[in-house]
Amino acid sequence: MTVTVTQAAPREDLSPRVEEMLRQRFALHCENAEAYGTEFAALWRATADHALGGKLVRPRLLLDIHRALVPSADDSATVAAVDIATHIELLHYAFLLHDDVIDGDLTRRKRPNLIGELAASTPATSEEDSLHWARSSAILMGDLMLSAAIMGFARAEVSAHARRRLLDLVEQTILETVAGEHTDVALSHGIIASDVDTVLTMSVYKTATYSFSLPLRAAALLADSSDSAEATLQSVGRHLGLAYQLQDDLLCVFGDHRTHGKDAFSDLREGKETALIAFARSTGTWERIAPRFGSADLSLRDATAMRDLLRECGAERFVVGLIGDQLDAVYALLSEAELAGEISSDAARSILVSASRLEGRQA
Amino acid sequence: MTVTVTQAAPREDLSPRVEEMLRQRFALHCENAEAYGTEFAALWRATADHALGGKLVRPRLLLDIHRALVPSADDSATVAAVDIATHIELLHYAFLLHDDVIDGDLTRRKRPNLIGELAASTPATSEEDSLHWARSSAILMGDLMLSAAIMGFARAEVSAHARRRLLDLVEQTILETVAGEHTDVALSHGIIASDVDTVLTMSVYKTATYSFSLPLRAAALLADSSDSAEATLQSVGRHLGLAYQLQDDLLCVFGDHRTHGKDAFSDLREGKETALIAFARSTGTWERIAPRFGSADLSLRDATAMRDLLRECGAERFVVGLIGDQLDAVYALLSEAELAGEISSDAARSILVSASRLEGRQA
Repeated sequence: MTVTVTQAAPREDLSPRVEEMLRQRFALHCENAEAYGTEFAALWRATADHALGGKLVRPRLLLDIHRALVPSADDSATVAAVDIATHIELLHYAFLLHDDVIDGDLTRRKRPNLIGELAASTPATSEEDSLHWARSSAILMGDLMLSAAIMGFARAEVSAHARRRLLDLVEQTILETVAGEHTDVALSHGIIASDVDTVLTMSVYKTATYSFSLPLRAAALLADSSDSAEATLQSVGRHLGLAYQLQDDLLCVFGDHRTHGKDAFSDLREGKETALIAFARSTGTWERIAPRFGSADLSLRDATAMRDLLRECGAERFVVGLIGDQLDAVYALLSEAELAGEISSDAARSILVSASRLEGRQA
Repeated sequence: MTVTVTQAAPREDLSPRVEEMLRQRFALHCENAEAYGTEFAALWRATADHALGGKLVRPRLLLDIHRALVPSADDSATVAAVDIATHIELLHYAFLLHDDVIDGDLTRRKRPNLIGELAASTPATSEEDSLHWARSSAILMGDLMLSAAIMGFARAEVSAHARRRLLDLVEQTILETVAGEHTDVALSHGIIASDVDTVLTMSVYKTATYSFSLPLRAAALLADSSDSAEATLQSVGRHLGLAYQLQDDLLCVFGDHRTHGKDAFSDLREGKETALIAFARSTGTWERIAPRFGSADLSLRDATAMRDLLRECGAERFVVGLIGDQLDAVYALLSEAELAGEISSDAARSILVSASRLEGRQA
C-alpha cells in the first residue's frame, strides 16, 4: 500500500521555534538550578543535553495539522501552538525518563540515555550505588518534566474555555499513558496474560494517545475545531500511533539494522510483549521460540533463527496486515470527515503526509 | 521552652471536608480506572486505602491559617481553600510514593506502605519481580498523584491573578522539594559530603517547603494577603518545617518508641544523614559510631549504645538547641509581622498553636 499525496507549497517550518523555546527553557532551568547545588545543576545540564536535539515528531505533527486547520493563523495563535507543541515534547521526555527507569534501560538509539550517562560518570562506590543514584535522579527529573509539561498547558495564552479543554486533554492523556505503561509492566511479569488484543490496547494507551492523539487533538482545540472534528482526530491518532508502534516492532526484528536507529533484536533479548510475539504465542511454532525469548545474552545466530520462526509462523504477515488495517481506517476516517465538512482537504492531506512519512520508515 | 497561647473559641473543623473531597475523588478515579483493566483498577483501590485516613497535617495548617487571616470568609472562599488544601495532600502523597521507591522503603509507620502491600500480594515469580512490579506501580501512581495535584492548582476557582500566583507557588515548591530529595540521595551515597549546613538546607527544601511554607503561603495567597505577609509566612514555614524535621530525627533515636509512630532507630539502621549524624561526624566520638552506622541488622543493644554516644558527643543537645533557634525565629518573625500590621494577631496565634502542637510531639 502506497500513499501518494501532493505536498502543498513549502511554508515556514515551525519546528526550529520549538527547539529554540526548549533551548531557552533549559538554559533558564540550568541557571536557576545552581542555587540548589552543583549536583542538581549538573543533572539539569545532562538532561538538557539528552532532551534537546530530538526529531520533534510530536511538535511537528501538532504544528503541521494546526496550520492546515487554520491556514491564516495570526501570530498569537501560532505562538500558542508552538508553546503547546513545546510542552508536549517535555511530556514525551517525562514519560521516556520514567519508562527507562522501569524498563532498566541504559541506552536509547544505541547511545547511553540520561541514566546510562549519570551511572557511568558518578564516583559512587559500587555499580549498584551508581545505578541507584542515576535512576533516582531520573525519577526526580521525570517529575520536574511532567510538572513543567502540565504547567505549560495550565498557562497557555488562550481563552479560558480553550485552556480548560487543554487541561482536560492533558489530564486524560497522562491517565491513559500511565494505564498503558502499567499494563505493559504487568504483561512483562506475566501478571496479565499476553494476547493480541491486550497488547494492541496497551500500545494504543501507552504510545498512540500521547504521541499522536494528543498533538492532533491539541491542534484541533487550538484551531477551535468542532467536537466531532476533535473526536475524529483522536481516532485518527490512535490508528496512526498503533501503525507506528507496529512498524517499530517489525523494524526491530525484520528491519535493516544499519538504516534505522533501533538496536537489532533488542525486543527479543528483553522479552518484550509485542503484537508479533502475542500472535506467535497462539501458534504451534511458539514452543520453538519460547526457550530463548527474553535471554539477555541472545546470540546473533539465535536471534536470526527466532526472526525466521516469527516469519514462518505468520507473525510478520499478521502484523503487516494490522498496519494496513490501521492506515485503511485513517483514510476512511479522513474521507468521511472531509465529506462531512468536519475538516478541510488541506488538513486531511497534511495528516496523510504524516502517514506516508510513517510508511517510509519501513524501507 | 513552652508556648502558652489562648485558643480561640472552637470553630467548625474543616478537615472532614478535605477528607470527604479526597474520598469522592478516589471513588471517581477507581471507577474510571475499571476501563483500563482489573490490575489498574486494583492499583487505584490500593492507593485510595493508603492515601486516605492520614492526619491531614498540611491541609489543616492551610485551613487554620486561612480562617485566621479571613475570619469572615464567604462560602466560595472556603470552598477554594478546602480545594487547594486537598490538592496539597495529593502532592504530599505523590512525594511519599516516589520517596519510598527511591529509599527502598516497604513500610511506613510500622505498617506496609503501598509498595509493601503490592509486593506482598502479587503472584509474580520471584521476590525481585514482585518488588519491580510494586515499585513500577508506585512510580506510575506517583505521576498520577503529581499530575492531579497540579491540575487542582490549575483549575482553582479563584481570580486569574490568584491562579497564576498559585501555579507559580506550586511550581517553585515542586522544584525545591525535588532538589532537596536529590541532595538527600547524593548525601546517602557520599556524592555530597555531609555537614550540618548541607543537611539543614536539604531538610528545608525536601520537607519544610512543601509541608509548611506551601500551606502557609497558599493560605496567604487565597486570603489576598500582601506579598510581604506571604514572604513572612514562607520564612515561618521554613523554620517550623525544619523544627518539625529535627524533632522527628530526635524522636527516632531518643524518643519513647511506644508512644510515637516511628520505627525505633530506623534512621540509624538506614544510615540516614540527619543533623544529629552530621554533628556527630564533626566530633571525636564519630569513630566509635561509624562502624555500625547504617547496618541493616543493627541490634537493639548496638542501637542503644549508639544513642548513648550521640548524647555523649553533644549531638542531642545541639539538635535540641537548633529546634529552639527555629521556634525563636518563628516568634520573632510573627511579632515583627504583627507589629508591622502585616498579619493579624489571630493569624499569628493560630500559627503559634500549630507550633505548640509540634512541641507536644517531643514528650
